[in-house]
Amino acid sequence: MLFTRTLDCLLKSRKTVTALHYSARNFAVTLSKMSEIEKKFVLPKRLEGAKRVVEYIQLALEHKPLNLGQGFPDFPPPKYVTDALSQVANGDNFMIHQYTRGFGHPRIVAALSKLYSKLLGREIKGQTEILTTLGAYEALFSTITGHVDVGDEVIIIEPFFDCYEPMVKYAGGVPRFIPLRMKSGGSKVCTSADWVLDKDELENLFNAKTKAIILNTPNNPLGKVFTEKELNQIADLCKKWNVLCISDEVYEWIVYEPNRHIRIATLPGMWERTITIGSAGKTFSVTGWKLGWAIGPENLMVNLQMIHQNSVYTGVTPIQEAVAIAFETELQRLGQDECYFVSISRELLSKRDYMAKFLQDVGMKPIIPEGRLLYDSRLVSSGSEKDKYKDYRFTKWMTKNVGLQGIPPTAFYSTPNKHLAENLVRYCFIKKDENLQGAAEILRKWKSNKN
Amino acid sequence: MLFTRTLDCLLKSRKTVTALHYSARNFAVTLSKMSEIEKKFVLPKRLEGAKRVVEYIQLALEHKPLNLGQGFPDFPPPKYVTDALSQVANGDNFMIHQYTRGFGHPRIVAALSKLYSKLLGREIKGQTEILTTLGAYEALFSTITGHVDVGDEVIIIEPFFDCYEPMVKYAGGVPRFIPLRMKSGGSKVCTSADWVLDKDELENLFNAKTKAIILNTPNNPLGKVFTEKELNQIADLCKKWNVLCISDEVYEWIVYEPNRHIRIATLPGMWERTITIGSAGKTFSVTGWKLGWAIGPENLMVNLQMIHQNSVYTGVTPIQEAVAIAFETELQRLGQDECYFVSISRELLSKRDYMAKFLQDVGMKPIIPEGRLLYDSRLVSSGSEKDKYKDYRFTKWMTKNVGLQGIPPTAFYSTPNKHLAENLVRYCFIKKDENLQGAAEILRKWKSNKN
Repeated sequence: MLFTRTLDCLLKSRKTVTALHYSARNFAVTLSKMSEIEKKFVLPKRLEGAKRVVEYIQLALEHKPLNLGQGFPDFPPPKYVTDALSQVANGDNFMIHQYTRGFGHPRIVAALSKLYSKLLGREIKGQTEILTTLGAYEALFSTITGHVDVGDEVIIIEPFFDCYEPMVKYAGGVPRFIPLRMKSGGSKVCTSADWVLDKDELENLFNAKTKAIILNTPNNPLGKVFTEKELNQIADLCKKWNVLCISDEVYEWIVYEPNRHIRIATLPGMWERTITIGSAGKTFSVTGWKLGWAIGPENLMVNLQMIHQNSVYTGVTPIQEAVAIAFETELQRLGQDECYFVSISRELLSKRDYMAKFLQDVGMKPIIPEGRLLYDSRLVSSGSEKDKYKDYRFTKWMTKNVGLQGIPPTAFYSTPNKHLAENLVRYCFIKKDENLQGAAEILRKWKSNKN
Repeated sequence: MLFTRTLDCLLKSRKTVTALHYSARNFAVTLSKMSEIEKKFVLPKRLEGAKRVVEYIQLALEHKPLNLGQGFPDFPPPKYVTDALSQVANGDNFMIHQYTRGFGHPRIVAALSKLYSKLLGREIKGQTEILTTLGAYEALFSTITGHVDVGDEVIIIEPFFDCYEPMVKYAGGVPRFIPLRMKSGGSKVCTSADWVLDKDELENLFNAKTKAIILNTPNNPLGKVFTEKELNQIADLCKKWNVLCISDEVYEWIVYEPNRHIRIATLPGMWERTITIGSAGKTFSVTGWKLGWAIGPENLMVNLQMIHQNSVYTGVTPIQEAVAIAFETELQRLGQDECYFVSISRELLSKRDYMAKFLQDVGMKPIIPEGRLLYDSRLVSSGSEKDKYKDYRFTKWMTKNVGLQGIPPTAFYSTPNKHLAENLVRYCFIKKDENLQGAAEILRKWKSNKN
């Protein structure tokens, strides 16, 4: 110990370090130096608590289960979309491989401006009111860190996409959580509409320190589509307390009839305090393309631009060009049956209902989602794993022993509210029919072995 | 004034705001509300000073000059590289359009690990020692904000890529600048090797608060390739003061004979304190692909991973796959004449020398770069613009009146040192021969009109 400290002192002396470093005492010095490096280069304080769970990806690699965990399709994206990228890549316009405008490639900005002018019912100015980002993820990062200052409170509705909390903390903000609570616990089949905010609980969260609320509709992982009445409650509180609404709407096109996606920015007085976030990855089933956007009034967008400009500067040109082509195609057939924005939900609806059926067959109680790709099913067994929360124990045990992987929903809750989701598991059904049939088969076999 | 304040008070009252908002005094309320929104949603303090100059892009759009300003090629990238992206986009493996491993797509990580194990002379572990990023820009952001804590000092060598300073400030750090100074001001043709650091000045900058030094070799915009002696001086100080070396080596392949790029991470004792940053955009002349990487020891990389995970999470899968294919091709022919890493510099060398000649013909005094794509030429006129610095006046005047755009190098200096570059202009020569000939023609005509 004394020896190490002596060496540390020596190492800190400007005269002796170089000589020492190459001396015969190299090994001991290296040890001491390493600990000095480790000491000096620990994570800055603001990054503590920013760690996220990635162990389920590792688990899938090890045990190769039928994976209904990760929220992306296991079938091809629309062919015209991937063809667009292929043609852009070896087309005549070779400048498409160089830098483009930092706040958004002109062609995609024009397409988004056209589309969202229709959807939001007002003219959206591409130059100042749209920012394209490296995935909706970067849009969330730019919005949260561009607006949240040290000590600001940010309201997060649970369950939530698990990056919201670390992003708020990274910006120095204080997350304030409010869970959607299940209205009825009876034996009837319940839907995501049965999960609601308590009006008083929500009202009590707003105060002078509230900077923003993060809304996610359709909600991940629940699939809840917020109703106009529910959105108006949130909107009224935002206006009352002068609060920014960060509206994560990446699943805007995955809403099952008769539900309807309402954009909170279209409610009276909300455009001027809302940043709406979207995703090409979710819209066109190409999550690996990492193209997202944020839309809002110029004075709010400036803050996002600053973060974007300082963290990534500009997006991927050929990807933005290809998605622009895809949007131009869909703009031609908006609202028609063959429009991908319509057909994707129709296609997923039958998958949703198929999964609802086979989960009920094995005694699980599905929560039928009104939107999105995922499913929650109440657990029937907790397995034999050691984790604190039942859903972790169940999903790990199932992956290792039954060969079917889901995601534990407590990952989408703050610590005090994790108990609300401990009896659930998230299964994703944006999967090939044969894999859904495989999942049904695995569960049926598991059930009959148990009995 | 009083009226506005009264309304503000009313607006802050929970009871009255909603009623007021829809009242007949809507206009006045909206005005007052807007100012309240603007007040509340100003930039957080840490983002002040993060603004960057983009006016030259606007200037080019307006005046359509022959543009030697922006640092990217105006000719096609290697065909096999763009073909790779095209084939990946509509190949059989459709899962290439979905999310991949967050810290780097396995195939590109494998290729980088193979390449940099050779270049750095040690086995580079892909799982823990490489992070792929959304451009080298994000690699810089993740490195700087992942390591620099409030109050830490970071040494920046001038001229510098203009994002270093705002990134350091955003992290709460204190930039400490040191310029490369021109050794001789005589009439002989000078090269970037004539620009050197003052040894004592550098030594005096290091102290107990120094967290990192940002090295950029080959340097942007000067084209200086740091020699082994110069790098050893920096390395010795880094070791003496336990300082992180952030080595931006995005132009590693653009070095003209007989100069040689030396990676500081290969010097004794430096691997354990260096993050080396590279770029597929610069390597394969596809700046719009936004793929970069950072390489370093595991304990230093963890900090970068945290920022990456919380700001963008994962990179673009098809782009990473295509660049992996490109690297695999080059790995087969490393060091051979047809290797793109060799041929690109050979091709650029003749462009460099052509530009040197025509600049001298019109009376400008080029600084011949040892590496990189850009050129500095001493100004001969300052034009009639109003800007504070002569290089800004000159380049703007030239764009508007002569039709040739360059970049003002004072943009690459801190305020106290801008005077060191005021008599220079940056012209980029990674351009088609016909455009370089066009530039020569424009300058010759301008010269003869002046005489």
